[in-house]
Order: sequence, then C-alpha cells, then structure tokens
Amino acid sequence: MHPRDVRFSKGHGTENDFVLIPDPASELDLTPGRVAALCDRRRGIGADGVLRVVRWEALRDGPEPVPGVEWFMDYRNADGSVAEMCGNGVRVYARYLEHAGWLPGTEFRLGTRGGVRTVRVDGEEVSVDMGAAAVGAQGTASVDGHAFAGVAVDVGNPHLACVTDLAIDGLDLTRPPGHDPALFPHGVNVEFLTPLNEDGEIAMRVHERGVGETRSCGTGTVAAVVAALRHAGRDTGEVAVRTPGGRLRVTVADGTTVLHGPAVLVAHGELTPEWWARSV
Amino acid sequence: MHPRDVRFSKGHGTENDFVLIPDPASELDLTPGRVAALCDRRRGIGADGVLRVVRWEALRDGPEPVPGVEWFMDYRNADGSVAEMCGNGVRVYARYLEHAGWLPGTEFRLGTRGGVRTVRVDGEEVSVDMGAAAVGAQGTASVDGHAFAGVAVDVGNPHLACVTDLAIDGLDLTRPPGHDPALFPHGVNVEFLTPLNEDGEIAMRVHERGVGETRSCGTGTVAAVVAALRHAGRDTGEVAVRTPGGRLRVTVADGTTVLHGPAVLVAHGELTPEWWARSV
Repeated sequence: MHPRDVRFSKGHGTENDFVLIPDPASELDLTPGRVAALCDRRRGIGADGVLRVVRWEALRDGPEPVPGVEWFMDYRNADGSVAEMCGNGVRVYARYLEHAGWLPGTEFRLGTRGGVRTVRVDGEEVSVDMGAAAVGAQGTASVDGHAFAGVAVDVGNPHLACVTDLAIDGLDLTRPPGHDPALFPHGVNVEFLTPLNEDGEIAMRVHERGVGETRSCGTGTVAAVVAALRHAGRDTGEVAVRTPGGRLRVTVADGTTVLHGPAVLVAHGELTPEWWARSV
Repeated sequence: MHPRDVRFSKGHGTENDFVLIPDPASELDLTPGRVAALCDRRRGIGADGVLRVVRWEALRDGPEPVPGVEWFMDYRNADGSVAEMCGNGVRVYARYLEHAGWLPGTEFRLGTRGGVRTVRVDGEEVSVDMGAAAVGAQGTASVDGHAFAGVAVDVGNPHLACVTDLAIDGLDLTRPPGHDPALFPHGVNVEFLTPLNEDGEIAMRVHERGVGETRSCGTGTVAAVVAALRHAGRDTGEVAVRTPGGRLRVTVADGTTVLHGPAVLVAHGELTPEWWARSV
C-alpha cells in the first residue's frame, strides 16, 4: 500500500484519547516505532494509545477468529507495546465503526486480546460488557501519610478501590499511592471515591499503575462502582460515576458488569507520506 | 461556511507543535474557546498553539496590511489568547504554504503581530529573520540552590542566557529558575547552554516564562547563540544549537539574527462537524 493512503481518526472516551488507524484488510506495517511516533504528542498526532481497526479474519499474529465476530480491536499502548483491553477504547472503536458505516448492528460482538466483548451503540452512549468483577481482600492505600481503607477488585487487572468521606479533589496523586506489596506484588491501580449518594452517584479519581493519574479508566470505573455498592451493603445495581474526564455509568449484575459512556470522534485525516516514511 | 468544511493540519518545528487552520478568506469563527479546544491534547487535536493561515487583506481585527505582503500568521496561544510571534511557528507556517501551493516564492515576507518577517524555504530547512537581539545587563539564575551567571538578551521578549560548564542534562527545570525580579519585573525566559565548542556548536535547554521547560524555543535559541558568541569574545557568527527537540542554526550579523531549522507536517484532515459545533 502506498504510504499516501494512510488514514487516521482521532477520538476520545471521557478524555482517554486514541488514534484510530483503519486497516480492515491488515495491509499496513504498523510497527511499534510507528505506534510510538503516532502517540507522541509533539512529533506525532498524540494519544494514550492506537486502535487499529481490522477485520478479525485478516488479523495476523493474534487470537484465532471467532465465527460471527467481524471486527477486532488491535489495541497498542503509547510505547508501542501490545495491550489487551480498554473499556474507553472499545467505545471509541465502536463510534468509528458507526462513522465508517461498518457497524454490524447497534448491538454486536467485538474481538479483543482480552476476549470477545458485547457492545451496544445507543445514540450518544456506547455500552461495553466488561465481564465479571471479583472482590478480593481488604487493603490500604496511603497518600501524603494518610491511610485509606480499600478493597481489592479484579476486573481482568488489579484494583484497590477506596471509599472515603474526605474531599477527593484535594488528594495529591502526582506520586503513586502507597499500598501493601504482599497483596499486589505486580502493582495496582488505585481508585479514590465518594460514598454512593441518594441519587445513585459517586465521584472518583484514579491512579493507573505505571502511568499516573488519568482523566478516566474503564476498569477502574467498574472497580469503583463495585466497591461503592459493597460499601452500601449491595452486590448489584446501577451507579453514575463522575470522573475528571466526564460522566460514565456502570451496571453491576450477577456475574457481569456493563460500562456505559460517551465516545467522541474529533477529526479524520491522512498522515503525510514523508512523516509515515520517516517514522519506522 | 458549513462546519463540515473545517480543515486542519498538524505540524512541528523542533517539537514545538501547532494546529494549522487554513482560512485564507477569514471566514471561520475561530473563538478563543475553539482555539483552546483544538489545543487540548485529550479533548482536541493537541498543540502548543494554533496558526490560522489567512490572507492579510482578509484579516479583521489585526494590523493594517503591508503592500506586497500576502500572508499573515494569526498565531494564538493554547489558552486561546492572541500571541505576537514565534520563530518555530513561522517555519511550520511556511511549510504549510509550500504544501498548499500558496508559497509566494522561496524567499518571501510574512505578516505577524510582531512585524513583517522575511522567510526563506530551502529544502528541509526554513530560515526566519528574527530581527535584532539587544544584549542587556548581567544577571543570575538559580536552580536547586546553584547560581548561574547569565546575560539579559532582548529578542522582542526578555531572556536570561547562562553559559555554564556544568552538564545541563542534569538540571531540574520542573520548577521556574530563580532570577532577580528587579532586572525582570515581568518574568523572564531562562536558557542554560554549553560554551561554544570548536565545531561551532552549543547545547541548550530553556525554561519558558509561564509555560515551563519546552523542547525548543525560537527566540530562546537566538538569545543563547548571542550569549555563546559574547562568551567567546565575538559579536557575530553562525552557531549550531542542539535542543531537546532537535537541531537549529542561528546566524548573528550586525543588527539582525536569522534562525534556521526544520519544519515537519505530520497530517492533514477535517474536524468532525459535531466536534466543531460543540466547541465554542
């Protein structure tokens, strides 16, 4: 394929932002170096990650296609490495399929390296099946010498979700919160959240393992809602979540969770051939 | 103009990056809010500033056109405010004119709020007349309790350029360097640079007033070269400058300075009508 033809889109889900590269027939040489260059916020377009839009049957070096599942989310981190799943990314990916006229239906199944996910596009909102969330041991996070009681929640990745009556806006999350390394030997994502209020809402902030504080985090939002419901004496329910990047909703039912939220496409365009050729 | 028609490009000069908005006839409603949204690195495209590409005769609310000068660089800061001049921005603007087929000639004059500048496009390199640089008083910058002797250089904006034998890579510029407020009542941009070596080169880092450390700074590069030449007992000459964002060259002659450097276009595209309509 001639490099003149490399198209991209940029979009975000509650300010978790992505460069989308449509490559349905898997023809592009999207090297780790090119992914890192695309995500570089000054030398490239800039994003938290790249979502390559590819038909699963065309995918090379990935999981075997599942019959009836047309599209695969080939998600890469900003450093060029391969990533598994991202709730915010799935919403933006679905919005792109809608834009391109490729949406298999308003409810469809999408392949990811974290398994097949059911996705539903409903106007402004996109919903993603995030699977089961498993509650684990109790733990403690510390920020500026203050200890916060929390609960371990596994949403495919490890979380420590801490319900607190303190004003979470004032927490200094520029450094990673302290935690018990025996409980989380590979590190942990930490959420700080307000108790469930009478309108069924919480506010949360999240510190992502290896990244820092982010504007929002899909699995972190699910973990926070599980912890908020548990704190209120409930196992299931629907909760609205205010994050620095925007509003989301989570439904927790027996054995499954669903994340609902916005997905915005900002722009569509083409990379210049010179830039693509130099970024290998 | 229908919002579907809002095109943009993204480019950078030594990693000082810009969103270019072609608007030759001055038809777009580019509000401060839209500029800030465009520059937002998660909700928008992301950039250090916006360069609106407009014919000077079509410009409203700007300086009177100068006969024979076709194009005007309407430069806005990332917060939406109006800005005067930017050496890195001029190079990227000229590269865009070349891409669009609008370059008046390989050497041409460009209108800016900081005056008319002569620009030369020569293959990979673009050169910009930066005007005279005036050497002022001696001063001192402090970082982590260490004092650095420097010299004030006015390049349309104030600089304190400090030649040092210390390894500049190790300096902590996450906080603004200390300086004498009597000498710079409105703050100052501070450069740390190595002495001129036998190959006619220096390395520099810059802390921009009100911004923080940046990958490169056009006027700061000029100020650093003026200080390096002075430190070597010279008033004029040509010096190569290594910045974190890439390599530049500066020519200092009697009464004028010229900045030479690369300018890269990364991508061209269209903003989605929904995004444009919401970002007011």
